[in-house]
Amino acid sequence: MMNRLSIIGIGLIGSSIVRAARKHGLAKHIAIADSSTEALKTAEDLKLGDSYHASPADAVKNADLTIICVPIGAYAEVGQAIAPHLKPGSILSDVGSVKQAVLRDLGPLAPDHVHFIPGHPVAGTEHSGPAAGFAELFDGRWTILTPLAGADANAVKTLGAFWTGMGALVEEMEPIHHDQVLAITSHLPHLIAYTIVGTATGLEDSTQREVIKFSASGFRDFTRIAASNPIMWRDIFLNNREAVLEMLGRFSEDLTALQRAIRWGEGEKLEDWFTRTRAVRRSIIDAKQA
Amino acid sequence: MMNRLSIIGIGLIGSSIVRAARKHGLAKHIAIADSSTEALKTAEDLKLGDSYHASPADAVKNADLTIICVPIGAYAEVGQAIAPHLKPGSILSDVGSVKQAVLRDLGPLAPDHVHFIPGHPVAGTEHSGPAAGFAELFDGRWTILTPLAGADANAVKTLGAFWTGMGALVEEMEPIHHDQVLAITSHLPHLIAYTIVGTATGLEDSTQREVIKFSASGFRDFTRIAASNPIMWRDIFLNNREAVLEMLGRFSEDLTALQRAIRWGEGEKLEDWFTRTRAVRRSIIDAKQA
Repeated sequence: MMNRLSIIGIGLIGSSIVRAARKHGLAKHIAIADSSTEALKTAEDLKLGDSYHASPADAVKNADLTIICVPIGAYAEVGQAIAPHLKPGSILSDVGSVKQAVLRDLGPLAPDHVHFIPGHPVAGTEHSGPAAGFAELFDGRWTILTPLAGADANAVKTLGAFWTGMGALVEEMEPIHHDQVLAITSHLPHLIAYTIVGTATGLEDSTQREVIKFSASGFRDFTRIAASNPIMWRDIFLNNREAVLEMLGRFSEDLTALQRAIRWGEGEKLEDWFTRTRAVRRSIIDAKQA
Repeated sequence: MMNRLSIIGIGLIGSSIVRAARKHGLAKHIAIADSSTEALKTAEDLKLGDSYHASPADAVKNADLTIICVPIGAYAEVGQAIAPHLKPGSILSDVGSVKQAVLRDLGPLAPDHVHFIPGHPVAGTEHSGPAAGFAELFDGRWTILTPLAGADANAVKTLGAFWTGMGALVEEMEPIHHDQVLAITSHLPHLIAYTIVGTATGLEDSTQREVIKFSASGFRDFTRIAASNPIMWRDIFLNNREAVLEMLGRFSEDLTALQRAIRWGEGEKLEDWFTRTRAVRRSIIDAKQA
């Protein structure tokens, strides 16, 4: 159990950590900071923490573990604000969906006397804000830690134990590999969902109404994904540009091949492809990630 | 209540109709036909119907309503087999996801003394086969009917009442318009999901395992869609080629625009797009189709 846990940014992920840490008795005092007075007020109304801070510098004072839960574009600002106030020997982590950019932006700001261990819980919903969080969000889901070479093994172990304490499974990974894997499993699916939902909104008005009405046929699953936090996703795409563009290139080639098969009536090619993809679902169910 | 309902093809949709018709007392006798002896055996084991037929011609005899629930590519064969045996004054319908092709393939085969009224329940899951159906599948979902000009108003009313009796909402639409709306709400989303899941399976083995492991971040929703019946979807793409290629063209343009915004770091463009798509989710929730 930590004496003091500090959460910077009380959105879906931050507020889920707070709830899970509380539920599993992982911290005596939970300090919450957010730049939005509205979010902070909601967190207080929901009694999520023990103290509430407009300034992240106040929240991190004496904290054993500080987790940054803001969009990646705001990391540098937060890092500058909290760096001088971090407790020596404490752990500084985050939950960002891109890890190389976090090392780039936050790494140089993290003081030497602090254990800087980036992290990423691979979990979420399309909802945002402090009220959207829930204690079970990380149950059975993976959290990836990307410690730097030479990171303190005990600190990595402590952070890992914090996540497993909240129900998560923990794995370590190289930052560059993390960004490639997430580009295909998360970033590209979101980009595609955002695209097709936008394409639909560009249709004539009468058709648009019908798109809503008949969305149960596949489209609505994309709208759920495309309802995710716009700022957070803007920052992810801007900060994982290379890996996203690489995966997008592969996707576009495959889409063009299927487009050609449709145009030329190549039924066998389509059937083969659709049969192969079906097996992937089975693997995900077997891996208990469905 | 019908005296005899005949269902040709006892997959997810066929078996859901049978269960819903039974639950709501819409037919005295339910005759089930399927070309697969295994599917027919499963249907019998599940006690879905009152009679089971390897030959669709036997199933339709004396039926007041016949609904074809096979992949679109098999319509012509089924139509030829049943046409001489359809009861004069009875209704012949279907559940295919493409309507112009159904008119093309089945229209010329339907005898003049039968009311041919194509239909499409906009509902489904990624599961297939007689065991996958359930009586509530159509509850609150739309079924689209595409009667020909000059169709018998009473027959259209009877068929509509059958669907509303199973809990569905019913709407009439022009076949060409149906195919355009479904191209964007259903066919393109499925094509894209099939594509990206296939792209992921083309990655090196080690990354593939991680794609499964970390699929909770967006990818798994696509795998669900990409687990749908391969034969059924092959036939949909081959039979709604024009509308799918048109919508795919629009999608590709939009995807290229977002790709460019990522490459050039145009954050505002991304944020605007992602904010616009978020509103669509709201509309779907308001329309009770979420």
